[in-house]
Amino acid sequence: STGTPQVVIPGASSYNGLNLVPQMGWNNWNAFHCNVNETLLLSTAQNMVDLGLRDLGYNYIVMDDCWSIGRNSSGYLVENPVKFPNGIKDITDKIHALGMKFGMYSSAGVFTCGRYPGSLGFETQDADLWASWGVDYLKYDNCFNQGQSGTPKLSFDRYNVMSKALNATGRDIVYSMCNWGNDDPYDWAYTIANSGRMSGDIYDSFNRPDDRCPCTEAVGCAWPGFHCSVMNILNKMPAIQSRTMSGYFNDMDMLEIGNGGQSDSEYVVHFTMWAMNSSPLLIGTNIGTLSPANLAIYSNPAIIALNQDKSAGAAVRKWRYVVDPDETGQGEISLWTRSMANGDTVIALLNAANTTMMMNATMNDIFFDQRTAGAYQAPPQLSQTWDVYDLWANRMTEEEAAAVINGTSTLSENSTSRYNATATSYIEGIAANNTALMGVKVGSIAPSGTFSAEIARHSVGIYRLRSQGKASPRKRDEL
Amino acid sequence: STGTPQVVIPGASSYNGLNLVPQMGWNNWNAFHCNVNETLLLSTAQNMVDLGLRDLGYNYIVMDDCWSIGRNSSGYLVENPVKFPNGIKDITDKIHALGMKFGMYSSAGVFTCGRYPGSLGFETQDADLWASWGVDYLKYDNCFNQGQSGTPKLSFDRYNVMSKALNATGRDIVYSMCNWGNDDPYDWAYTIANSGRMSGDIYDSFNRPDDRCPCTEAVGCAWPGFHCSVMNILNKMPAIQSRTMSGYFNDMDMLEIGNGGQSDSEYVVHFTMWAMNSSPLLIGTNIGTLSPANLAIYSNPAIIALNQDKSAGAAVRKWRYVVDPDETGQGEISLWTRSMANGDTVIALLNAANTTMMMNATMNDIFFDQRTAGAYQAPPQLSQTWDVYDLWANRMTEEEAAAVINGTSTLSENSTSRYNATATSYIEGIAANNTALMGVKVGSIAPSGTFSAEIARHSVGIYRLRSQGKASPRKRDEL
Amino acid sequence: STGTPQVVIPGASSYNGLNLVPQMGWNNWNAFHCNVNETLLLSTAQNMVDLGLRDLGYNYIVMDDCWSIGRNSSGYLVENPVKFPNGIKDITDKIHALGMKFGMYSSAGVFTCGRYPGSLGFETQDADLWASWGVDYLKYDNCFNQGQSGTPKLSFDRYNVMSKALNATGRDIVYSMCNWGNDDPYDWAYTIANSGRMSGDIYDSFNRPDDRCPCTEAVGCAWPGFHCSVMNILNKMPAIQSRTMSGYFNDMDMLEIGNGGQSDSEYVVHFTMWAMNSSPLLIGTNIGTLSPANLAIYSNPAIIALNQDKSAGAAVRKWRYVVDPDETGQGEISLWTRSMANGDTVIALLNAANTTMMMNATMNDIFFDQRTAGAYQAPPQLSQTWDVYDLWANRMTEEEAAAVINGTSTLSENSTSRYNATATSYIEGIAANNTALMGVKVGSIAPSGTFSAEIARHSVGIYRLRSQGKASPRKRDEL
Amino acid sequence: STGTPQVVIPGASSYNGLNLVPQMGWNNWNAFHCNVNETLLLSTAQNMVDLGLRDLGYNYIVMDDCWSIGRNSSGYLVENPVKFPNGIKDITDKIHALGMKFGMYSSAGVFTCGRYPGSLGFETQDADLWASWGVDYLKYDNCFNQGQSGTPKLSFDRYNVMSKALNATGRDIVYSMCNWGNDDPYDWAYTIANSGRMSGDIYDSFNRPDDRCPCTEAVGCAWPGFHCSVMNILNKMPAIQSRTMSGYFNDMDMLEIGNGGQSDSEYVVHFTMWAMNSSPLLIGTNIGTLSPANLAIYSNPAIIALNQDKSAGAAVRKWRYVVDPDETGQGEISLWTRSMANGDTVIALLNAANTTMMMNATMNDIFFDQRTAGAYQAPPQLSQTWDVYDLWANRMTEEEAAAVINGTSTLSENSTSRYNATATSYIEGIAANNTALMGVKVGSIAPSGTFSAEIARHSVGIYRLRSQGKASPRKRDEL
Repeated sequence: STGTPQVVIPGASSYNGLNLVPQMGWNNWNAFHCNVNETLLLSTAQNMVDLGLRDLGYNYIVMDDCWSIGRNSSGYLVENPVKFPNGIKDITDKIHALGMKFGMYSSAGVFTCGRYPGSLGFETQDADLWASWGVDYLKYDNCFNQGQSGTPKLSFDRYNVMSKALNATGRDIVYSMCNWGNDDPYDWAYTIANSGRMSGDIYDSFNRPDDRCPCTEAVGCAWPGFHCSVMNILNKMPAIQSRTMSGYFNDMDMLEIGNGGQSDSEYVVHFTMWAMNSSPLLIGTNIGTLSPANLAIYSNPAIIALNQDKSAGAAVRKWRYVVDPDETGQGEISLWTRSMANGDTVIALLNAANTTMMMNATMNDIFFDQRTAGAYQAPPQLSQTWDVYDLWANRMTEEEAAAVINGTSTLSENSTSRYNATATSYIEGIAANNTALMGVKVGSIAPSGTFSAEIARHSVGIYRLRSQGKASPRKRDEL
Repeated sequence: STGTPQVVIPGASSYNGLNLVPQMGWNNWNAFHCNVNETLLLSTAQNMVDLGLRDLGYNYIVMDDCWSIGRNSSGYLVENPVKFPNGIKDITDKIHALGMKFGMYSSAGVFTCGRYPGSLGFETQDADLWASWGVDYLKYDNCFNQGQSGTPKLSFDRYNVMSKALNATGRDIVYSMCNWGNDDPYDWAYTIANSGRMSGDIYDSFNRPDDRCPCTEAVGCAWPGFHCSVMNILNKMPAIQSRTMSGYFNDMDMLEIGNGGQSDSEYVVHFTMWAMNSSPLLIGTNIGTLSPANLAIYSNPAIIALNQDKSAGAAVRKWRYVVDPDETGQGEISLWTRSMANGDTVIALLNAANTTMMMNATMNDIFFDQRTAGAYQAPPQLSQTWDVYDLWANRMTEEEAAAVINGTSTLSENSTSRYNATATSYIEGIAANNTALMGVKVGSIAPSGTFSAEIARHSVGIYRLRSQGKASPRKRDEL
Repeated sequence: STGTPQVVIPGASSYNGLNLVPQMGWNNWNAFHCNVNETLLLSTAQNMVDLGLRDLGYNYIVMDDCWSIGRNSSGYLVENPVKFPNGIKDITDKIHALGMKFGMYSSAGVFTCGRYPGSLGFETQDADLWASWGVDYLKYDNCFNQGQSGTPKLSFDRYNVMSKALNATGRDIVYSMCNWGNDDPYDWAYTIANSGRMSGDIYDSFNRPDDRCPCTEAVGCAWPGFHCSVMNILNKMPAIQSRTMSGYFNDMDMLEIGNGGQSDSEYVVHFTMWAMNSSPLLIGTNIGTLSPANLAIYSNPAIIALNQDKSAGAAVRKWRYVVDPDETGQGEISLWTRSMANGDTVIALLNAANTTMMMNATMNDIFFDQRTAGAYQAPPQLSQTWDVYDLWANRMTEEEAAAVINGTSTLSENSTSRYNATATSYIEGIAANNTALMGVKVGSIAPSGTFSAEIARHSVGIYRLRSQGKASPRKRDEL
Repeated sequence: STGTPQVVIPGASSYNGLNLVPQMGWNNWNAFHCNVNETLLLSTAQNMVDLGLRDLGYNYIVMDDCWSIGRNSSGYLVENPVKFPNGIKDITDKIHALGMKFGMYSSAGVFTCGRYPGSLGFETQDADLWASWGVDYLKYDNCFNQGQSGTPKLSFDRYNVMSKALNATGRDIVYSMCNWGNDDPYDWAYTIANSGRMSGDIYDSFNRPDDRCPCTEAVGCAWPGFHCSVMNILNKMPAIQSRTMSGYFNDMDMLEIGNGGQSDSEYVVHFTMWAMNSSPLLIGTNIGTLSPANLAIYSNPAIIALNQDKSAGAAVRKWRYVVDPDETGQGEISLWTRSMANGDTVIALLNAANTTMMMNATMNDIFFDQRTAGAYQAPPQLSQTWDVYDLWANRMTEEEAAAVINGTSTLSENSTSRYNATATSYIEGIAANNTALMGVKVGSIAPSGTFSAEIARHSVGIYRLRSQGKASPRKRDEL
């Protein structure tokens, strides 16, 4: 008699139904900055198809700042005719034809960060224009916002105008907020956006502190800045771990892999920890000159499967010790854990110290949350034996990756080291114990055991743990 | 000639006349999270009656998040028909029939924390519905608040809408704010609510720091988070001690006793210090599987009498020393004091260090506030002799508690270790020197004396001090 | 041709023309709290006349909280008929008849701090009522302000309503804001008030830290609290030194001298440093039981003359060293300086360390501000010789003070240790080199010299420096 | 078909078209404070012409506070007739006749800081009056702002009123905000102003901390204060480096060189680092008594050319080490770099430690930004050889400067140490390798090399680096 209620499904919702797992794709900013044009966008899209990146899930081509030359007399933005001689609509059509999607950029201010026209006050016109062009995604920046910040309400209200304008177009457009974590968006943006940056801009350094990125915590950061290192951004995540949700992801910024500022193992850490925290994965380098080693990183399906897991959560940092500093004064080790939708648990042993470390993860550390979450009965995880799979063990070799780049690869799309997620979803692949997604079994952990691994300097060991079976009954006092 | 004034009685007021001493009861969240249903609520209520918990004062059964499935076409919330096949009205009726009261949950946002429909914008409809169901209590959360926070005014205004809606129903409904201390509610919520959380959510750990609970102070905490330990929450109280008042209590969050994450002595600290600070006492475990030891903690009437004292104040932390850290890096000892309505004083010697400590409380420490509060004449307390009663000395034995659980107890409801506050109020009991409320005399302190006790690791000694009589005249220079 | 301009006289203004030097008087709170009544107010006023305190400048009798019993049906406040059987108007008349003025208390909230009716929303009615009673002063508190704080604008707007209401009465009413420094009133209250508290409430302790007073700086203090020690409050002043101005004083809270919590030398520090910083001087003890020693402190005209100097400025802390902690962990020494309206300079050597110290003040330290204030020519002060007068040297003896209290004093009102500022203003007295105001010459400082003095533990040496004459010409390189 | 778009030129814009490089001139405050009058302004202007300062680019004569006596009955401000017997319009005419421009002062509050009438609420009238007087510049202070601060929005809105009023006059008026960095103007003022102060007021000290300047960072500074040293202000710049832009400069406050509080080498640091960070350069001393040494600092065209470079950027602090403290507890060394519009790079080796230091700048440090800015290909700078020019090597000798002051100089306006930028712009001069702008070549740095220099205590070495030619091809692994 009270009518038909609308059902809300907790844990799988999204304000606009989009982006239930983190978006993946490519963005030109990190590598090209303002130097964007039709050729770059289209050739990159084609390269991503050819390299198998599209089929791994990287399906958004996102154009960043510097694409317009102003507004016309009707107030509509005009694309730069030199950069885009056939117009942006033509680009979106061609990208759609490749089975990919197209992302647009603007700022919730009177100018973009590059001082091109911004969308503040023009939200409806701009959203309508982009929808008419077939745009699928908006990265929405925070520059020149006329001081409309300083409380969550001021930022929420400003970003909400564009949210409503996008929805009003009727087109599915993923809304990616880029307000650098100002005014704590992780606490309010879920109801208006699909992702939100939580730090100042990344730069291509593993851990060097830079004066222009003054905060070491996301929370209460008065000035996000930019030139934030991989480790700086990563260490801003644990406090806001609970605010990553299906449909809204804390965006750790675009990937720097391939830009030359870090070692191979550092790039592996970068990719792994972004994936582990359900950050959007936007490739930020020149696809046209991608090295085999870097392709092998971007293409690890076992890591991507972790990122695209329906659990849609961020990792918990169980412990962190500041030790063994390098020449920048930085050094630390940490253990991160995350529960997968299918009951697996993933752990990362991160060595950001200056020397090789033997690192340990105890069952109690790994399942501490279960033990303290209303566990009036002992959590079953603690009494199970878990098999341990190394998620980087099947990384493509340089030779294999070079062959993919050269178009001479003979590897199947579903070999041990390659995967086609367009053909078989990550969920299906995991359910089928696909080797490319599971990695290689390297051990197991007994109920009161410890997993140990030697982790090299500036490296990470990441492992998927799968229970061997049902928990054996435990006596109460085993706690 | 100026008409008949309305009289305000300082110290005994409440914005709505309710909750002059802290609310007591049970809430399903800590142990069951979203797994709430009719059976759980009704069986728990019956168990609480059977175990004597109702008659100790635990009279609210509070249902937490995840009870609805949406709003109907008229905008009214609809309970989950699977969880509540007979409706919530039926549950409140049955709980009322047991002599208990029923609490409801919602959030001052567009969603609850579990992403069910929230009450922001629906305050009147929701309050009316709950009143029609016979609801006696509302826990009102802070998730998905659309950025309406950042200044006290923004939070006050938002929470005030529900306050007015509840009052407008005409039903007595205790209003329990759960905004995690955001925007300093201890400074403004007294005029609109009956209690207010002052920290991020508790978790079942004595003192382990967790990255998800980044603040160590309530004041100026930009991100309350969750997974806050007992000691973390406790140490946020001293700065806001003055903002606990009759009718408005700083809520330290629901009790974890029984959930398995702490030792018996740690749970004793947890219960004691919550009571000592006039926190609401909401049992947060499975009553159906309560162990004898945990029942003995929840059932200590001497501690509950302290909590339910009409003084309605929080404790003063007179000193704290950071010493002797354990494996989590935490270690400290502290002295807490509080004045009772009848002139008694209660002191707690808390050992949160890693080893047994001989701890001291001097008369000057205990009565320092009196000495510096406009004491142009020497405070009488300093010249009196005080008898010292140990409030845990009469704790029920495991055997006694097991008998209560098994229904085989032969102890009277008013034995040394049991009490029925429905029959005899705590005030009457204290006035009659009831042994169950007074504990056991373990010593006395002379005017310039010191009380000493050996306190084990992660334990507390809590003592009620009663003056032996009138102060003897003192010479001025005794100060 | 542009008409007759209105002239603004910088440095001598006040938003309402009142309080060009700090207010002085008595307030019942520190000693009596809510226990205020007609007898106390009138007997105190008479005592202050008899002890010569009125004629030293202490001319406001300020009644604090707990005087009303509610509002009548017309919305006007009603005084407590038990405490004030003849009404408050009768009290103001009698106090006026004694040549003194009367101060009233309320709060910019819905309740006072003692939970009596507050004035928020009733500003005009309350101001009108008080004006009709002959009230000369309002202490306006900050409790229960409905969350109307968090930005300077929110606090300014709220306090401004009462400012306008007081002005609209047409009566001269000194407006003393008591918002504990919330939202930085030192930066905005000058245009609406005559003084403003800059810290949480004082308590009668020299330097003991107390958890309830969590801030050590005024600036950015999220929770002023109370139980702030003399040294805690004093050390909050240097950062906001420039915001003390004629007509608006940073109020360090009422004096505790006489309440028993500090030693004689600590009370001397308290009185001296309040005076040195142009804080309002409100006696906060029981005048009826004032000891000779405490009367001698409150009655030192040399210190009061410093406080009442037309320069109306706060002192500059030239240096501070944290040294030699006592049992509370506190220990420090510091040098404070201040320029007088007549060209004299006052310096304070404050020893808040745990042992006697030989302390030094160099000419460069004393006149550092002059040297760095656009001194493209060498500041004359550095090349002068200064005579040094000890401002406590002429303190009344205990015997003299006892005679004043007993009514048996034979000292003239203008002896070396007594003064009648009603008869001769402090300005005239200083101009005439009155010994009671100048203290005793104890040395002189040559152009490149240093003044040294042995200062006992928890004591202060305060000295008035007077130039011996014109500066001799100096060569440029003397700098 | 979308009409003619307006073109935005990134990097060379300005909200009102003015101040594309930092303003230069003179302001009376630091040296004269309120003692401003017609004679001072006009004689200073004439002196600046005579000393060649105007032709070096110092073309604004800015009058600071204390010039008015109130408002007339029409609400217009009235100049002080004693100070300005011929009116201010007469002064602007005469200054214009000297080929210079005139700056005015007011405050975005009800009073100026000196408590003269402020412009809040009178913006249009005041802007109109100033435009009618021929005013070219407004310094707009922040005192007595009625609490209209606390969020960026409150400050933006308040300062925007004057911005619009100035624009509405139709006259070109440079708008110099002086809100001390409150509410982060570097993040929002670009669209409404031409420069904005980012710190509390400077005082004439190299590095002495002063209690009245409590912040060491610009970001999140709750109380900017004043008496901020050169090093204090300088160290607030790196975090906000990106917010200096053509048309909007972060104003480090007026120069103290000549006021006597610092050594010659400290003044050189002051001038150099202000120029290096594109701060406005406002001489703040008495031009009439300027010493030869100080004239030689203000007149170094190589440093001014750096400041006036079209790159319009602030320097990046690449590293900073806190070492070797002096008697104030301060000691540090740092490396700063900046890219010039013509491809040159400038580096500053700053020794603010207490002893002479051998300091090094490696190629990697200097070009670290290039290496990590999307450098998927190696940045060419790292593979080039750079010639190093010392920008202070051609400083005018004391004898030369004395001759300029005495009017007896025989040096050409375009000698090695002098320059006339009115005749030949700095851009043209740099393009022509003018020696006065380039300094003296002191070495070169090879691709993997290091530049080393011995830098004396409290001194700076500043060097312009110019590439010897095209980069040689590098192998990828050279990174």
